[in-house]
Amino acid sequence: MNYEKFLELMSEGGFFYPSFEIYRGKAEVGGFYDYGPLGVELKRNIIEKWRRVFIYPYQDFIVEIETPIIMPKIVFEASGHLEHFTDAIVECTRCGRKYRADHLIEEELGKRGISIKTEGLGLDELNGLIRKYGIKCPVCGGELGEVKAFNLLFQTTIGPYSENIGYLRPETAQGMFVSFPKVFNLMGRKLPLGIAQVGKVGRNEISPRQGLIRLREFTQMEIEFFFDPENPRCPYLDELDVKLRIVPEKDVAAGIKEPREFRPREAVESGVVPNEWMAFFMGLATIYMNELGIPLDHQYFLAKLPQERAHYAAASFDQMVYSERFGWVEVSGHAYRTDYDLSRHMKYSGYDLTVERRLSTPKEVVEVRVYPNPQRIRDAFASEAPRVMQAISKADPRWLVNELNSKGVVVVDGYSITRDMVFIKEEKRKVFVERFIPHDVEPSFGVDRIIYVTLEHAYTEIDGKPVLRLPPDIAPIKVAVLPIIKKDEYVSIGKRIFREFSRAGVKAVYDDDGTIGSRYARYDALGVPFAVTIDDKTPIDNTVTIRDRDTKAQVRVSINNVVAIIIDAVLRKLTINEIARSMGLQLISRG
Amino acid sequence: MNYEKFLELMSEGGFFYPSFEIYRGKAEVGGFYDYGPLGVELKRNIIEKWRRVFIYPYQDFIVEIETPIIMPKIVFEASGHLEHFTDAIVECTRCGRKYRADHLIEEELGKRGISIKTEGLGLDELNGLIRKYGIKCPVCGGELGEVKAFNLLFQTTIGPYSENIGYLRPETAQGMFVSFPKVFNLMGRKLPLGIAQVGKVGRNEISPRQGLIRLREFTQMEIEFFFDPENPRCPYLDELDVKLRIVPEKDVAAGIKEPREFRPREAVESGVVPNEWMAFFMGLATIYMNELGIPLDHQYFLAKLPQERAHYAAASFDQMVYSERFGWVEVSGHAYRTDYDLSRHMKYSGYDLTVERRLSTPKEVVEVRVYPNPQRIRDAFASEAPRVMQAISKADPRWLVNELNSKGVVVVDGYSITRDMVFIKEEKRKVFVERFIPHDVEPSFGVDRIIYVTLEHAYTEIDGKPVLRLPPDIAPIKVAVLPIIKKDEYVSIGKRIFREFSRAGVKAVYDDDGTIGSRYARYDALGVPFAVTIDDKTPIDNTVTIRDRDTKAQVRVSINNVVAIIIDAVLRKLTINEIARSMGLQLISRG
Repeated sequence: MNYEKFLELMSEGGFFYPSFEIYRGKAEVGGFYDYGPLGVELKRNIIEKWRRVFIYPYQDFIVEIETPIIMPKIVFEASGHLEHFTDAIVECTRCGRKYRADHLIEEELGKRGISIKTEGLGLDELNGLIRKYGIKCPVCGGELGEVKAFNLLFQTTIGPYSENIGYLRPETAQGMFVSFPKVFNLMGRKLPLGIAQVGKVGRNEISPRQGLIRLREFTQMEIEFFFDPENPRCPYLDELDVKLRIVPEKDVAAGIKEPREFRPREAVESGVVPNEWMAFFMGLATIYMNELGIPLDHQYFLAKLPQERAHYAAASFDQMVYSERFGWVEVSGHAYRTDYDLSRHMKYSGYDLTVERRLSTPKEVVEVRVYPNPQRIRDAFASEAPRVMQAISKADPRWLVNELNSKGVVVVDGYSITRDMVFIKEEKRKVFVERFIPHDVEPSFGVDRIIYVTLEHAYTEIDGKPVLRLPPDIAPIKVAVLPIIKKDEYVSIGKRIFREFSRAGVKAVYDDDGTIGSRYARYDALGVPFAVTIDDKTPIDNTVTIRDRDTKAQVRVSINNVVAIIIDAVLRKLTINEIARSMGLQLISRG
Repeated sequence: MNYEKFLELMSEGGFFYPSFEIYRGKAEVGGFYDYGPLGVELKRNIIEKWRRVFIYPYQDFIVEIETPIIMPKIVFEASGHLEHFTDAIVECTRCGRKYRADHLIEEELGKRGISIKTEGLGLDELNGLIRKYGIKCPVCGGELGEVKAFNLLFQTTIGPYSENIGYLRPETAQGMFVSFPKVFNLMGRKLPLGIAQVGKVGRNEISPRQGLIRLREFTQMEIEFFFDPENPRCPYLDELDVKLRIVPEKDVAAGIKEPREFRPREAVESGVVPNEWMAFFMGLATIYMNELGIPLDHQYFLAKLPQERAHYAAASFDQMVYSERFGWVEVSGHAYRTDYDLSRHMKYSGYDLTVERRLSTPKEVVEVRVYPNPQRIRDAFASEAPRVMQAISKADPRWLVNELNSKGVVVVDGYSITRDMVFIKEEKRKVFVERFIPHDVEPSFGVDRIIYVTLEHAYTEIDGKPVLRLPPDIAPIKVAVLPIIKKDEYVSIGKRIFREFSRAGVKAVYDDDGTIGSRYARYDALGVPFAVTIDDKTPIDNTVTIRDRDTKAQVRVSINNVVAIIIDAVLRKLTINEIARSMGLQLISRG
């Protein structure tokens, strides 16, 4: 692939290009990209396709929500991001330039012909490599300082008090964890429950390069899928007609790079994938990428070793897609987050995040109960007393007792509760249900990377001219309306047809500028699957031709039907042959 | 309206509710709302409807882009937001609590029966009011300090260098201004050109209340519409079949509150609205709100007086919609931003943002030209010289000369250029074109407020039970599939029909829990326009009934057609009567 020519098409065609170009050199603008008019449509189509694969067919138990991008500090204390979400940074002691330590080491040693993998190394180990190889600042040659941890969260302040720190979320996931009890209630308190979100996230990368592959601001599509670990069955697993290509954890550990093929159930039964739901989403992910035009042999799942995994994951796989330019690129991550996140939020919020499981046989348990002491609470809180009592009854009693025992006071919903304000009782009960924290598997997709690999795979050159073979339902512009020559009569018919497409909400373009051949080439390059051509027959018999981008075949249809035919062809993903066949028409030419 | 009952439906139905509930009392979380499963769908439908009104029919000259939420500081220096985008804040000298000064004054004086409008007042005037009326801290009774300006931009740092300040954008607009030259090129260098964007923005409100009406993070839909001020004609103005209800600037100044009606062209010709494009978008805005269910007499445009207008606006109107709960609420703003923003960005970036106008008669002009002095530039920049020369030729020569004359040096694309590195020449030329900065009108919509007023208008109670009369194309769930009683045979047919809807991407719900009456009521409350009921006839003749939420009328149709009928009814906005008529069927009952 001619990458320069591809990038030029992306920019000049209005797909994507670096943001803030007019301020380049005047401000730090790395790691930000704009989507142009075609990029916005493509992105929307790719997101909508994701919903069609992951949400709509399962809408009775997978729902989408939207939560804020800005979240208060305590969320990221609970999630572990304040502690763990860091990259190693090293600063030149002479010029003050800062580098991401692992990338710097790999690049500098690469120049010397030494190949080292730094993934998963700690600060001390990175520091050791810099000293061992005497790595210097690549710009000024100065000594490098100590390797430090740099937190990748974008920090800000919420409201006028400087102590109210907030951060931009680095993943949409935390929104689903924090609102889990609300959505669980809304959905009838049933498991399994998938909570999905599509939205922006921010990661303050040290020195992002690689275009859409590493951005400081990007879009994720994530599902947090909560299930009962004692009832982990996925009833849809065997419906999936797909094989998973996986490099399992023990192959990775043994240095084996070739993926093996598993049917989804087989992957679970052989212990390669830890549960059915995870295998299910990996199957859907394979189908999804395939529908975007990524062949099966250009994708596989790579298991992460324990030291490579995010802090919350008990197991995880990266879905890798082949890129001619960047090699294998991670487009989605599939993590088994267990009950890590809900447990942490339960601890930090004091809010009960457990759910109920019906027992097959009842059992006897000793339960701690905390009851408000109404007299003391009224003395302390006057008219607020009812709220305080409600807050106490809502809180997890074990947590209340722990806090009271260790600190003598516990803050519930902003109210300071002391030991004398509650009665603590131990009660023996026969129970028919027990409470537990749901487990979570997370399929997490990076929209921008998916856009990139989709475009790269669609890109080809025919006789030196670029063509984007985007699937019609993904293509940003569905149809180009082209008078064969610029003649008043053709122009006015063409404009009328274009207006009809516009009013029907079909993304279309009208163009009468240049030869018909150069216009076909222009819209082939922009991935437009169909061209409607107005020619000498049009004013006579009220027909136009529809031309197919990939086969160049054409079919002649009545003007009155052309809008409906194109809509139908896009929605049902018909080829020009299928259109012709369904209408009993002949393909009339090629070219 | 029973607001409590309405809010409960919004929360329990999964439309919207406060974010971070589990951390309430532990963190500053005011001004953030989640959208639940129904809210997300409603929001998406409302945004899609906006595109259908404002973009799709005009796609040859209005295009959508997506630019980052985080923007570097210089953007907001240029835009004036660092200087002007402030609220007045006042701090209690005893307890340290902070208040938005204008709101505090209005509320405290309100308690004393004094009504004062503080909009547009300066810091000194607000300070004066606090002293004059002896206003104290409403919580602790302490003395209030001096009123100060508080900037509402959320601040952060981009990358590892603390001096690289960035902000969350407070409007999507700046993205369109900054990328104007890129999009102008993409779209063939033609005016008029509308650049639209839908996306998140952040405003760090001092103490937001009022639910969805005042959020710290919210979604905007904006168009920056660029046109030649010497050719301001809108060819679509007379196509609009709508009257604008306006309180013009001079009526506002005279204290007149009653809007007057104008045809769009009339509003321009009488000087009430400053140009045709602005009147055009105000017309579309009226139609748009009407299609969301807001009657015409519940909306009008309120002119802003000069002291009330944003710093960039030469004229502006707020589109006001009536809310039972909040009174008249601004749902969109229509500002004539002239060339203010592009001029400022041209000044701060040094990038030429002018465009070309063909003159009807050529004229002679004296032009300043700046040419690089190759020798000096090679001496100073060595291998970078070609880039420097290119940067100089791209920059606005008048700006270069101004900077060099005033400072002796000018920074272009990060390179410091001194006087000796360029030749400055004055050249006389006959020109057939001249350059100018396009003017801009901006229709700007707050999605969250529109969601609120749409829901409030849809809300009604029938026999004490809530019903949401949302238009079918806006309603989040299109159809409820309900077996009349929970009988195995009905259940399995119902579930099969539900799966068919799911696979077709139609938002649907299946429910067999409770009496049919209680389920109709449940889905009426959630705004579901159609219910499909499986009854005793279904297993016999393969038919189901479709029930209409608003009329309660029903029609019996074949199971094989029901998915297609519902899709068609939603897309084409058909009532049940129209469905029945189009199929030659009788309405069979009410209830």
